[in-house]
Amino acid sequence: MKQFTSVHDVEDLEALVREALVLKQHPYAYESLGKHKTLGLIFLNPSLRTRLSTQKAAQSLGMNVMVMNMGQEGWALETKDGAIMNGTTVEHIKDAAAVMGQYCDVLGLRSFPKLQSVEEDYSEEILKKFIQYANVPFVSLESATRHPLQSLADLVTITEHAPKGRRPKVVLTWGPHVKALPQAVPNSFAEWMCAADVDFVITHPEGYELDPQFTNGATITYNQQEALEGADFIYVKNWSTFQPNYGEVLTQDASWMLTNQHLANTNNAKVMHCLPVRRNVELSDEILDGPNSLVVQEAANREFAAQAVLKRLLEGIK
Amino acid sequence: MKQFTSVHDVEDLEALVREALVLKQHPYAYESLGKHKTLGLIFLNPSLRTRLSTQKAAQSLGMNVMVMNMGQEGWALETKDGAIMNGTTVEHIKDAAAVMGQYCDVLGLRSFPKLQSVEEDYSEEILKKFIQYANVPFVSLESATRHPLQSLADLVTITEHAPKGRRPKVVLTWGPHVKALPQAVPNSFAEWMCAADVDFVITHPEGYELDPQFTNGATITYNQQEALEGADFIYVKNWSTFQPNYGEVLTQDASWMLTNQHLANTNNAKVMHCLPVRRNVELSDEILDGPNSLVVQEAANREFAAQAVLKRLLEGIK
Amino acid sequence: MKQFTSVHDVEDLEALVREALVLKQHPYAYESLGKHKTLGLIFLNPSLRTRLSTQKAAQSLGMNVMVMNMGQEGWALETKDGAIMNGTTVEHIKDAAAVMGQYCDVLGLRSFPKLQSVEEDYSEEILKKFIQYANVPFVSLESATRHPLQSLADLVTITEHAPKGRRPKVVLTWGPHVKALPQAVPNSFAEWMCAADVDFVITHPEGYELDPQFTNGATITYNQQEALEGADFIYVKNWSTFQPNYGEVLTQDASWMLTNQHLANTNNAKVMHCLPVRRNVELSDEILDGPNSLVVQEAANREFAAQAVLKRLLEGIK
Repeated sequence: MKQFTSVHDVEDLEALVREALVLKQHPYAYESLGKHKTLGLIFLNPSLRTRLSTQKAAQSLGMNVMVMNMGQEGWALETKDGAIMNGTTVEHIKDAAAVMGQYCDVLGLRSFPKLQSVEEDYSEEILKKFIQYANVPFVSLESATRHPLQSLADLVTITEHAPKGRRPKVVLTWGPHVKALPQAVPNSFAEWMCAADVDFVITHPEGYELDPQFTNGATITYNQQEALEGADFIYVKNWSTFQPNYGEVLTQDASWMLTNQHLANTNNAKVMHCLPVRRNVELSDEILDGPNSLVVQEAANREFAAQAVLKRLLEGIK
Repeated sequence: MKQFTSVHDVEDLEALVREALVLKQHPYAYESLGKHKTLGLIFLNPSLRTRLSTQKAAQSLGMNVMVMNMGQEGWALETKDGAIMNGTTVEHIKDAAAVMGQYCDVLGLRSFPKLQSVEEDYSEEILKKFIQYANVPFVSLESATRHPLQSLADLVTITEHAPKGRRPKVVLTWGPHVKALPQAVPNSFAEWMCAADVDFVITHPEGYELDPQFTNGATITYNQQEALEGADFIYVKNWSTFQPNYGEVLTQDASWMLTNQHLANTNNAKVMHCLPVRRNVELSDEILDGPNSLVVQEAANREFAAQAVLKRLLEGIK
Repeated sequence: MKQFTSVHDVEDLEALVREALVLKQHPYAYESLGKHKTLGLIFLNPSLRTRLSTQKAAQSLGMNVMVMNMGQEGWALETKDGAIMNGTTVEHIKDAAAVMGQYCDVLGLRSFPKLQSVEEDYSEEILKKFIQYANVPFVSLESATRHPLQSLADLVTITEHAPKGRRPKVVLTWGPHVKALPQAVPNSFAEWMCAADVDFVITHPEGYELDPQFTNGATITYNQQEALEGADFIYVKNWSTFQPNYGEVLTQDASWMLTNQHLANTNNAKVMHCLPVRRNVELSDEILDGPNSLVVQEAANREFAAQAVLKRLLEGIK
């Protein structure tokens, strides 16, 4: 594997999930693989789970890790080609990426969307330029439109807890939030679920339709109650609008917030969320602190998702 | 040992001090103990000595270390149970701690008091919740009311420099400062000195009484000159008021700032301070740069205090 | 070697360059040299290349690395002797350096000039005090007046790409910029080129004369075109004025920005820049993206320059 930016970079989805589950049992089985290899983790935006889980995963593979928080460390990057850099940006992403590619054997980048222009965000210009100029194996730590390490961890978690002998029903439901959030997590989750061996339903208020490129194959409904019927897994996440007006909050309708009552007609559904979660806004305390919540296990699996991906990238180097 | 949050977590104080002194001689004697173990250091507030000394100590034990500066990295934690998180906090401490506990074998947390409500600060709610939800061995990197790694380093330093054949006289004296500071260091120092084999005196201006739960057994006086008589060690520290009005600065009386003149009737007392120190406000240049200062040796011992504690926590894992 | 702050700390310049080039071929040949040794990297100002390359270099030598971003982590240092610290600084550099020297076997410091007082900046007070009080082997990560790790990497790069059988002609040319920048990089580059086996010419607009202590032996001209004739290497860099008015921007004359046209009368000159570079202000896209640019190779050599220096410092410990 040369890069991990979406499900399309994965040749055999089932094998990658299996790999993650094996690494969970034997995290130090490949600690010579990363010897003398350096992972650079570049954050243009804050991170807790992604940073710690990827750092831990790399260390278990014997890699050195260097973390760079560009935002906090005051290093504003220019992204436009041909820019006359007489403003506030101090370095072009071309040059920064090329240099970091010299010091690191594998690079990861986190770059959130600005939620101002759908064309700009959905072009994934920053991600693509960074990969192009860094010119080393690459892992996305969440980009403007996708969060593939999260999605892999989600699929690993679903695989671990799936009912025996039948395809699970997985529901992605929109939840309320006070801020306009990116579509990266739901886009990515939808894309992975459409590629996985599950029955997949998406439910959200009218106006919150995701970009169809990610939801092809999913059943989509505005009726949350109907969607949840018989669900084995409920994935809760807020997102802002994709179209026609990009990055907007249309409603904060609290009835969309999952409570135990919403679980009544499910198949004793397990509830997932990528975290961080706004308690009692996106998701209720009773769910999060109750027996159906998988959020901590899901976060724990971030480590093994990252480790499986880093292992593939390292194997691709030689 | 499962946690290190105060002197009450230490079974045998003398043995722990001895351990630190042995590790100072042989810092790499246990470097296989921490193999495949990860220490997470979570800072809700800035740190220099605590961060570097604990990181160094962990590395000498063969551990991997991951540092997270939550404040600087823009990750505001919610601490109230049942909060409806529609404000500025992005994640509940419950969830953040539970997740970090998945990635780390041992966790440390620094969390300063807000100095607004004595009930809130002295409840140590953040510390307790973090420990409860992280659910892994824990070391306090300074909490609202205590700084036990500092106190252990202080006791190690006193043990190293103590007069032979008799109990040393140790004096904790308040010093002036321009800001309202927490009581964590003096509380903790008092608590450790009351548990150690020393004669312990506390002196401060009227109104600066510490919470009696920490000073039980100490002699307390408003007369600094009297307190310093015959002292072997003088521990200088500013703190703000505990009661009746919490977190206030009542005086900046410069006569309380230790100078060489204050050493006249002491037993050629060694002077200690936890650092950082406001020179010529809390403590004079002539003391800090003179032969009686132990502040650098004391800071150096932070490493071995941390190493002794981490060693105990690691031994408690298996 | 006990410290690396300028070319004057290097006994045999050619041998150090050779060492860097050997390490580039065999970066892990000395990985037991740094075992149980800790490098502390203290940044009072932001850093990308210096931080990552030095961290990587140290890890290849088997060292542990601890990074402290003082600015971002809110730790304002006092530098004046005798200061009454009742203002905003929280710790004196004396105490901070002494403490960090206890935890680290080798220390590095980055400290930019304030560009307000030439006496203050050119006294290198912060650098000197830090070295004095830290009292361990020291590497400058760029100080007020010099950037020696950059200069060593520059000389390594020139050595790699130099014409066979004759001294190369190296030209340092001023380039325009929107901000007032330090003279550290051009000072240091000049000092190293004057000590190396090259023909060295400096060109800049009138009023941008560098401090003569760094340029002794160089040919200096205001005529850029004349300077560039027959050049093998062109080193582009902006700097603000040294005298009579310190730290000023006198011109942003765009004709000084290097384009392909400027290369016409050179010896197909290679173009260098320390990065970060303001594209199309300091240096044109066509140069930076063209075949004559060495900027990425130059940045890559930062790693081996740092490694050669750290190796010498480690060898000096025992």
